[in-house]
Amino acid sequence: MKSPSSLEFLTEALRRLPGVGPKSAQRMAYHLMQHDRDGAAMLGRALTQAVEHIHHCARCNTFTENEICETCLDSARDASLLCVVETPADQMMIEQTLTYKGLYFVLMGRLSPLDGIGPKDIHLEKLIARATDGYVTEVVLATNFTNEGEATAHYISETLKARGLKVSRLARGVPVGGELEYVDAGTIARAMLDRRST
Amino acid sequence: MKSPSSLEFLTEALRRLPGVGPKSAQRMAYHLMQHDRDGAAMLGRALTQAVEHIHHCARCNTFTENEICETCLDSARDASLLCVVETPADQMMIEQTLTYKGLYFVLMGRLSPLDGIGPKDIHLEKLIARATDGYVTEVVLATNFTNEGEATAHYISETLKARGLKVSRLARGVPVGGELEYVDAGTIARAMLDRRST
Ligand SMILES: [Zn+2]
Ligand SMILES: [Zn+2]
Repeated sequence: MKSPSSLEFLTEALRRLPGVGPKSAQRMAYHLMQHDRDGAAMLGRALTQAVEHIHHCARCNTFTENEICETCLDSARDASLLCVVETPADQMMIEQTLTYKGLYFVLMGRLSPLDGIGPKDIHLEKLIARATDGYVTEVVLATNFTNEGEATAHYISETLKARGLKVSRLARGVPVGGELEYVDAGTIARAMLDRRST
Repeated sequence: MKSPSSLEFLTEALRRLPGVGPKSAQRMAYHLMQHDRDGAAMLGRALTQAVEHIHHCARCNTFTENEICETCLDSARDASLLCVVETPADQMMIEQTLTYKGLYFVLMGRLSPLDGIGPKDIHLEKLIARATDGYVTEVVLATNFTNEGEATAHYISETLKARGLKVSRLARGVPVGGELEYVDAGTIARAMLDRRST
């Protein structure tokens, strides 16, 4: 006796989600088939659409459905400032502080040699090309204040300073060890105003 | 500044999975788009296929791609015995003990008045019709030995005995409060052999 093959395929595919083991995958598959077929169909469509439409902004590397994202196309922003963040969620946190009017570069990760995540994985070449476009005069490093985020900031700082750019870092208003996504906007606002050269 | 709409749609759709809140949904969406587009495409196909092909066996109520599942079609099985389980996973556990050669009925749940899960949700009418087909002489209740599983067994037992059927329950070899899925096959085998009338 075995499961129908399309149920086995679904259970196997659900394991591709981060943090989902065999038991949760089975529980999810049963739940969807038993109680939420509309949800299953909707998630199926959402995945297919996202794979088809989502790619990386040619300028800032964030997710977008266009060649260049809305933020990068916003001519009201200060093109001389480039803020480097780890994720789109971090960028959103900074936007909410209303203290920054420049542009962004989204690494989509952080350096983590132990996990095999090197400069190529955080799109360092793309960042260098972006930061040396002739308009950017200051790069604000807003990676997390974790060990990996600090190491990433240090590495990027050295690389960009070697190319003659001014590089600053969010001030230590952000608690050491803290992740931007979970810090209140007021603290991030203060850190943005107090940013220091590195 | 907001996320691309197909990314927002994906994040929203991922929340339909049991146990997935807003933060995990966003983490999953980013992970898939950034690191595992093949996985996302595969999961999309798996969901669409499962919704299309998976339905409930007309006889035993388990998931199947056919009108009647393979187990129900197996003429080597003893049609006079009907074992009632909560889930396909529980059925699989019992199959692995090799102590049971009858047929099954899968409730796809258990009675849980506090969660609003009543007799209709565990397909009691379908079970009554199945158990009174003229071939079944004994119904073996193999719901879990949790409070809800015991209450479900009690309710089904009363209902089926009122229709003149012999009803038995797996022996208390299964630890009280235990869930079948996590019990070793030897214990379940003993409980099957020691099943008692109710
Ligand atoms: Zn952009
Ligand atoms: Zn069946």
